[in-house]
Amino acid sequence: MGEETSPGTFSPRAPVVNAQRLWSRHMALAEIGALDQGGVNRPAFSPLDAQARRLLIEWARAVGLQPSLDGIGNLFLRRPGTQPELTPVLTGSHLDTQPTGGKFDGVYGVLAGLEMLETLHDAGYASPRDIVLVVWANEEGSRFAPTTMGSSVFAGSLPMAHALQARDAHGDCLGDVLPAFLSAHGELPAATNLLPYAYLEAHIEQGPVLETEQCTLGIVTGIQGLRWFEIEVRGEEAHAGTTPRSARADALHVAVKLAHALFGYFDHAGDDVRFTIGRWRTEPGSPNTVPGHVSFTIDLRHPHAESLETFAKAIDELCRAHACTCQVTLTPLSQSSPIEFATSIQALLHRSAQAWAVPRMELISGATHDAKWLSALTPSGMLFVPCERGISHNQRENAKPQDLAAGAQVLTESIVHLACEAP
Amino acid sequence: MGEETSPGTFSPRAPVVNAQRLWSRHMALAEIGALDQGGVNRPAFSPLDAQARRLLIEWARAVGLQPSLDGIGNLFLRRPGTQPELTPVLTGSHLDTQPTGGKFDGVYGVLAGLEMLETLHDAGYASPRDIVLVVWANEEGSRFAPTTMGSSVFAGSLPMAHALQARDAHGDCLGDVLPAFLSAHGELPAATNLLPYAYLEAHIEQGPVLETEQCTLGIVTGIQGLRWFEIEVRGEEAHAGTTPRSARADALHVAVKLAHALFGYFDHAGDDVRFTIGRWRTEPGSPNTVPGHVSFTIDLRHPHAESLETFAKAIDELCRAHACTCQVTLTPLSQSSPIEFATSIQALLHRSAQAWAVPRMELISGATHDAKWLSALTPSGMLFVPCERGISHNQRENAKPQDLAAGAQVLTESIVHLACEAP
Repeated sequence: MGEETSPGTFSPRAPVVNAQRLWSRHMALAEIGALDQGGVNRPAFSPLDAQARRLLIEWARAVGLQPSLDGIGNLFLRRPGTQPELTPVLTGSHLDTQPTGGKFDGVYGVLAGLEMLETLHDAGYASPRDIVLVVWANEEGSRFAPTTMGSSVFAGSLPMAHALQARDAHGDCLGDVLPAFLSAHGELPAATNLLPYAYLEAHIEQGPVLETEQCTLGIVTGIQGLRWFEIEVRGEEAHAGTTPRSARADALHVAVKLAHALFGYFDHAGDDVRFTIGRWRTEPGSPNTVPGHVSFTIDLRHPHAESLETFAKAIDELCRAHACTCQVTLTPLSQSSPIEFATSIQALLHRSAQAWAVPRMELISGATHDAKWLSALTPSGMLFVPCERGISHNQRENAKPQDLAAGAQVLTESIVHLACEAP
Repeated sequence: MGEETSPGTFSPRAPVVNAQRLWSRHMALAEIGALDQGGVNRPAFSPLDAQARRLLIEWARAVGLQPSLDGIGNLFLRRPGTQPELTPVLTGSHLDTQPTGGKFDGVYGVLAGLEMLETLHDAGYASPRDIVLVVWANEEGSRFAPTTMGSSVFAGSLPMAHALQARDAHGDCLGDVLPAFLSAHGELPAATNLLPYAYLEAHIEQGPVLETEQCTLGIVTGIQGLRWFEIEVRGEEAHAGTTPRSARADALHVAVKLAHALFGYFDHAGDDVRFTIGRWRTEPGSPNTVPGHVSFTIDLRHPHAESLETFAKAIDELCRAHACTCQVTLTPLSQSSPIEFATSIQALLHRSAQAWAVPRMELISGATHDAKWLSALTPSGMLFVPCERGISHNQRENAKPQDLAAGAQVLTESIVHLACEAP
């Protein structure tokens, strides 16, 4: 699992993290917005979101971290280094959740970073570079789209003015909601001096691969590119009893043939592709009426842009080939380019894991993360730890204390090395 | 189209029907419950249903017909014959409609019968047997289930007490609604002396076959048997980006494979089978979630009970063969046995059509009709006339005046022969 590096080139420097403290911090944060079945509902920009941040700031101040806040609500907790003229190393994730989210998605990346900083504090470890723990605003995008809002504004990919115009389902505008959220942090200075030297993010995997492979650490090589399509099949409604097959334009029959051909194609398109038909609508939806209209979505992901292009063409060709008696239209809904994380960061994570004897493997992220935007700005990387049965965005989301600690240890080791690197 | 009979064995006896009168009666009835787009909403047992019947009774009394009413709301309009000790010949259909129904479904069978009786009246034609025009109550079953309620009570297939316990979507009971409907007919005697010698029903085809074949008359050989099933596929929800194919229990993938296999099987199961997947539900129905649950219905029809049995077994085997990583369950929802109409009635319709040079072909009915229940009681049959593009249960339902008249002429000829037959 992963490449070996020659002995002697890398020795562990970081102090040992506190697994019990890391776990208890998760449990404490999970009380803010706790749901009945063990999950958490802590919407971005809500009073609960601010409450979670105040608790984090309290813990951070106890170990000398300096909080600051930017205009979109990203929260920074800085541990000053010995050479303030050097650019800082950033790590973090998010504290907002899905409406029925779990205790670990996002939270783990923040608390692993805090655990690292508390451990360095306890050990009296000084680094040349500042280390900054960041809580990105509104990663989930559940109330105000888009997702990863705070990090994309920070990285300059989303203009602040556009973000502030976002409206929720009730028509409320983020620009009107945000001031109350910012002031709920208490008096904090504006964030400055944040051009990052590097960025590292820890996260639960949100998939089953690490657990299946009985591996503790995923070194993330990149984030898959994504394309969403909608396929519409238009035929003609007809009476199920009176209309012979030859006189039908059966939208469901055509949709099933097309979907079958698509599944067949992607069965042979390699292990790296993710092909999902998630939404499927059939109208009128009466048992004794031949359907006149079917629509379904395609969620297509792959690490390489060229492959996504090839697959998109294949989908288009299959739509043309299977239209039969119906009219088939293919509409692109959205897309996101694949990214690759810096090889220097991947190599560092391998060395850190090896130094602490943490079983590791390389993984590609199927979900998007704040690290996507940071990677356009600075050498960036991510590490994954296993989550139970790959279940996430779900109240049942769960992880093992020892896995969380192992990930925090590799994070700490890696950050220490980055924070000691010369300009 | 249809068998020839040797000349000389059958000569036309009936007077010529009035195509213009038949059409204008349809247009007059269509005003009772008229909808914006040319259709009709005339629910069974409603004041509009009673209003349509009062208009019919008015027309019937003008040509000497004697109205009577039974306990479930079937309305009988009798033309006495010259030998009252003989059993009567019955013809008719229904006047209730679907919520967005058309001008012809049901109505045509009633008005073709009325046209026949008016034509006999105008010609002063006397028959030995009574001829009775019947308006069956609640054929559509839209508010109170089951469909074909009045005819199934009349034929003894549905106990009156069960029918009266039917409840609508608001919980109202038919037994409470029916008295007002019955009394809205005015003072009518209770129906008696109705053991039928034979039954004939005219109807629009509700399918595209006659129009496609450019044929005026369908001689209905029987009504298909029907089976409804629901197939449920249970897998497990998973994240579309993070879950590799090998770790998925994708309910939609399995459902598509199974549906594809079912369509493939029924592509080679003969021209007489009708196989329809009409309702298809996918949960949770989010583009980036692998579906955990899919259910779909099967509407299966065939003229022969043994074939339906064979097909049901094949469906069960295909469900077992394609379950793959999911759990597949097959649940029968309902069934109705096929029936064959009396060959004597079919032969009579052939001779009548030939005598009037009406192009004819044999057809099986895909939809159920009141004639189904009558066929258990007495020699019965049906004739179909074309409807535009096979569209029915729809405001756009349409038919040609000359086709309606041709059907009424064949009905008249056939009824006259039946009404003259000796015991």
